[in-house]
Amino acid sequence: MDLQAVLDSIYAELSPRLGEGKVADYIPQLAKIDPHQFGMAIATTDGKLYSVGSADTGFSIQSISKVFMLTLALGKVGEGLWKRVGREPSGTSFNSIVQLEREEGIPRNPFINAGAIAVTDVVLSGHAPREAIGEFLRFVRYVADDESVVIDDKVARSETETGFRNFALANFMRAYGNIQHPVEHTLGVYFHQCALSMSCIQLARAGLYLAAQGTNPLTGHSVVSPKRARRINALMLMCGHYDGSGDFAYRVGLPGKSGVGGGILAVAPGIASIGVWSPGLNKVGNSQLGSVALELLAARTGWSVFGD
Amino acid sequence: MDLQAVLDSIYAELSPRLGEGKVADYIPQLAKIDPHQFGMAIATTDGKLYSVGSADTGFSIQSISKVFMLTLALGKVGEGLWKRVGREPSGTSFNSIVQLEREEGIPRNPFINAGAIAVTDVVLSGHAPREAIGEFLRFVRYVADDESVVIDDKVARSETETGFRNFALANFMRAYGNIQHPVEHTLGVYFHQCALSMSCIQLARAGLYLAAQGTNPLTGHSVVSPKRARRINALMLMCGHYDGSGDFAYRVGLPGKSGVGGGILAVAPGIASIGVWSPGLNKVGNSQLGSVALELLAARTGWSVFGD
Amino acid sequence: MDLQAVLDSIYAELSPRLGEGKVADYIPQLAKIDPHQFGMAIATTDGKLYSVGSADTGFSIQSISKVFMLTLALGKVGEGLWKRVGREPSGTSFNSIVQLEREEGIPRNPFINAGAIAVTDVVLSGHAPREAIGEFLRFVRYVADDESVVIDDKVARSETETGFRNFALANFMRAYGNIQHPVEHTLGVYFHQCALSMSCIQLARAGLYLAAQGTNPLTGHSVVSPKRARRINALMLMCGHYDGSGDFAYRVGLPGKSGVGGGILAVAPGIASIGVWSPGLNKVGNSQLGSVALELLAARTGWSVFGD
Amino acid sequence: MDLQAVLDSIYAELSPRLGEGKVADYIPQLAKIDPHQFGMAIATTDGKLYSVGSADTGFSIQSISKVFMLTLALGKVGEGLWKRVGREPSGTSFNSIVQLEREEGIPRNPFINAGAIAVTDVVLSGHAPREAIGEFLRFVRYVADDESVVIDDKVARSETETGFRNFALANFMRAYGNIQHPVEHTLGVYFHQCALSMSCIQLARAGLYLAAQGTNPLTGHSVVSPKRARRINALMLMCGHYDGSGDFAYRVGLPGKSGVGGGILAVAPGIASIGVWSPGLNKVGNSQLGSVALELLAARTGWSVFGD
Repeated sequence: MDLQAVLDSIYAELSPRLGEGKVADYIPQLAKIDPHQFGMAIATTDGKLYSVGSADTGFSIQSISKVFMLTLALGKVGEGLWKRVGREPSGTSFNSIVQLEREEGIPRNPFINAGAIAVTDVVLSGHAPREAIGEFLRFVRYVADDESVVIDDKVARSETETGFRNFALANFMRAYGNIQHPVEHTLGVYFHQCALSMSCIQLARAGLYLAAQGTNPLTGHSVVSPKRARRINALMLMCGHYDGSGDFAYRVGLPGKSGVGGGILAVAPGIASIGVWSPGLNKVGNSQLGSVALELLAARTGWSVFGD
Repeated sequence: MDLQAVLDSIYAELSPRLGEGKVADYIPQLAKIDPHQFGMAIATTDGKLYSVGSADTGFSIQSISKVFMLTLALGKVGEGLWKRVGREPSGTSFNSIVQLEREEGIPRNPFINAGAIAVTDVVLSGHAPREAIGEFLRFVRYVADDESVVIDDKVARSETETGFRNFALANFMRAYGNIQHPVEHTLGVYFHQCALSMSCIQLARAGLYLAAQGTNPLTGHSVVSPKRARRINALMLMCGHYDGSGDFAYRVGLPGKSGVGGGILAVAPGIASIGVWSPGLNKVGNSQLGSVALELLAARTGWSVFGD
Repeated sequence: MDLQAVLDSIYAELSPRLGEGKVADYIPQLAKIDPHQFGMAIATTDGKLYSVGSADTGFSIQSISKVFMLTLALGKVGEGLWKRVGREPSGTSFNSIVQLEREEGIPRNPFINAGAIAVTDVVLSGHAPREAIGEFLRFVRYVADDESVVIDDKVARSETETGFRNFALANFMRAYGNIQHPVEHTLGVYFHQCALSMSCIQLARAGLYLAAQGTNPLTGHSVVSPKRARRINALMLMCGHYDGSGDFAYRVGLPGKSGVGGGILAVAPGIASIGVWSPGLNKVGNSQLGSVALELLAARTGWSVFGD
Repeated sequence: MDLQAVLDSIYAELSPRLGEGKVADYIPQLAKIDPHQFGMAIATTDGKLYSVGSADTGFSIQSISKVFMLTLALGKVGEGLWKRVGREPSGTSFNSIVQLEREEGIPRNPFINAGAIAVTDVVLSGHAPREAIGEFLRFVRYVADDESVVIDDKVARSETETGFRNFALANFMRAYGNIQHPVEHTLGVYFHQCALSMSCIQLARAGLYLAAQGTNPLTGHSVVSPKRARRINALMLMCGHYDGSGDFAYRVGLPGKSGVGGGILAVAPGIASIGVWSPGLNKVGNSQLGSVALELLAARTGWSVFGD
């Protein structure tokens, strides 16, 4: 199969649609992004790399960072993490607070905002915020095997100033004892992790450990056990696209995690890791064209976890 | 891999735990079942059959029937079905009515009760209830390649007399125009489909089309296209275990559908279809030991849709 | 104070607005009503009667009947009634089912549909539906001192055929054991009680016992104790206008109960009982002009339970 | 009627029950209070004062302060206030956040925490927090005609350090634009207003304007118009006891506002203002014995807004 040709055909098909969807506007710094952008990259477990469009342009990975922070947290506290956060789809939007009240401060899963904040709080334990941010950045550079990955301070600051809803979620969990540090500290780390700037190529490479039994096949870096890689994939499939997770599983059939910056990381277990980016979002908050691109990719390659 | 040995080891490990969980008691006829029962069967896509315990004993498949009725409905109306029912996990228990009010009569997915009732209403269209029941029974016999599959009338009657919550769900959807036949008709069909009695072996065989690109490899009977088989698997993974779907995906990693009779149908795409049964339920309404048995099976075989 | 002049001034002020609001359309028989109608009547505790407009025209009192059925039920089972229904405002619309799930089948108050159905189920106890309907009709004729009050069978039938949401509520409560008769029986009575046809004048007279310490001052008929009259007034004030009860208390300041037929019964304790009717409803389901008329009446008379 | 004798009889009847209920423990400073305390005072519109028990002991009025802040806010912005907060009972507990999400940042009424915080934000407009606190304190001293009313700084500090749930509510409303100052400023004022320390006697006198058409009959100080006094009473009746408001209206029949410090202010329009205090709370968060005392008072005096 000629993956480059597949990528080229997807790009050609989507080019007339560039600009579709709605750029996230609740973070002022993200609202400035030109929506007419698209990039896509595939890193295969046998070491090849394919890309198309603006696959080299850095963008704010936002919630995709939750996959890496979850990986880090599981490495630190293991399955004990699940005392702090659930593993079920939420049935609500990414920043809903309703469920938190019903379930007494335990977020439904690590990929909604509340859950990711709780995971960050776990990683923060015993550290100053600055140290935790540093540890996280080193970890992503390690899995991506790329020292040029950086945090965009302007985006982090923009979220700190306007992220009232995340402050609400964190304070609410603190009231239930499920945030254990000063809210400003935990959110300080959280806003910086979300502000990570990466390109599609960097993202595809960083996700390879999830496609390859927990070990980056390019570097040989072991990140997690095969079992844990499978489990993180399961969580991505179940909860990776907020209240559009079922639709994504139905159409694309691959584990994936989206971010409001317009990026999506998808994993074809045993085969490849895919990074795609286009800033316009659909109505449940996932990249409109990124989702379509992955649906086309799955259809043309036959990649699906649900059968040939 | 010696699958019979795997099954034997699972049975040996679970034997001391027989009786765990709580038998469903809201259907009087089901409440009479002895909880100390367990059966398991694996039908592989290359035509082998393995079984252990009471794999030949018929039990009430209940909500597992929703997989077959969904298959039938998709065959009749295709993707238009999704105007009547969603494809997202519900985040609530199997018979919740809350979500229906918030989303104006459109159930979240075809595997919660409300969604399954809407799917049955679609299949009922243009038929008398008795005809629709007959069509459904013939369809299951066809996919199972077994004419001895029957409906347990006592169970159907028991549900008809006590299924007030399902009457509530159906009337509620009728108020929104999403049930289009007299409620008694639609529920008449629904209660009979749920009252299907099958053994683990019959169930494993009936699910083979989902493991084998839509065609039963034993009979060559084509049931659905490969794409549709993948999509039904996706729905089973996302929504097949009510509010325990995330946990099942995390622990087992295979598409599956449970019923309150204690049965579970699971699918290892490309490899096998598995039927397991033990009547005691866990607190989210899925077979307690059936879930554990599938977790052990997945661990010992390495079967998982999320990677090796 | 010249109450007739007050009524005349209200009628004059509202005449140009006749037709405002939206006639209830979920009961086909009600949807046919001409919205350009208005009537109002005041019956004072000292035996006077004032009226204006179509105060003699019968209309479907619908939920106003809940006040009379509640009175009847309290007479039968006393304060034990509160095991079956709560006394708190619902914070939701009149036919919501969400709260019922959260509170396990116990409706929040006797004036939302679910609560009224539970109250009717209490009154039905030990009777055939036909007998209970007869008892209710006799009771209303007694409090109104008017044998010409009748039930509109066409409206009752119309609701029976289309009241799916009420069937949902009743079945849902039956699932929790809070409806104790066949749902068809309880709703049979409920639909007939709602189909009572009364004029503003009849309604004003029927409500006099609530304004006069439990005894109709015109007839000397004792209906309830003074304490119970106060308590029914309290329930009307707190819960009588669904999710517009707070607004009604704020603007009008009198206990009242509205119906989707466009009628409102209001009570000025110690002074008068008021019936008003205009079919167009506001967005929370209460008579648009009826509410305004009562606000004007309260302003011009100074009648308010909250001070002079 | 000998009101002193009534108070004495109530005190005698409740003395054996002192200590009932559960002292609020979510504010550490309040958790230290001895629950075996009780005081009650009645200030009549004709200038008499009656009291019993610890009616002279200061306690933290907490949410009772919302009545005074609401009065102040209505004086500043008039009916425009209702763009920022609703007037309907909430159907939920005092610090619920669920409703806020459903209704997009507009709290249901000014007496749940979220609503009171929004009201405080309105009063804060154009001021430094310290000034707003000063203005509020002066206002309460004015209505109480008592310069000795003070704010308990220890309580204010205690809430500032542990009031995570209020921080959640405020940030959540800020996300919707319904808090317009830095959250720390608005909550700074809010925590100080709640920390007001008053005795039953001070409270009874401070509430007299609500019983006497808006003007304190002792001092002749005009506070609000008669109409506004009635409307504040309406809000107190509808929403003054959180999710126990219906029960309070049913049993007591007077407008009232409770606080988690165990105080209740009640109003008998035209007759009297009552302050009662006992720290133990019932399960919906209102003073257990304070509620009973008011029920006894209403029964023995016949005071009720719902009729004689």
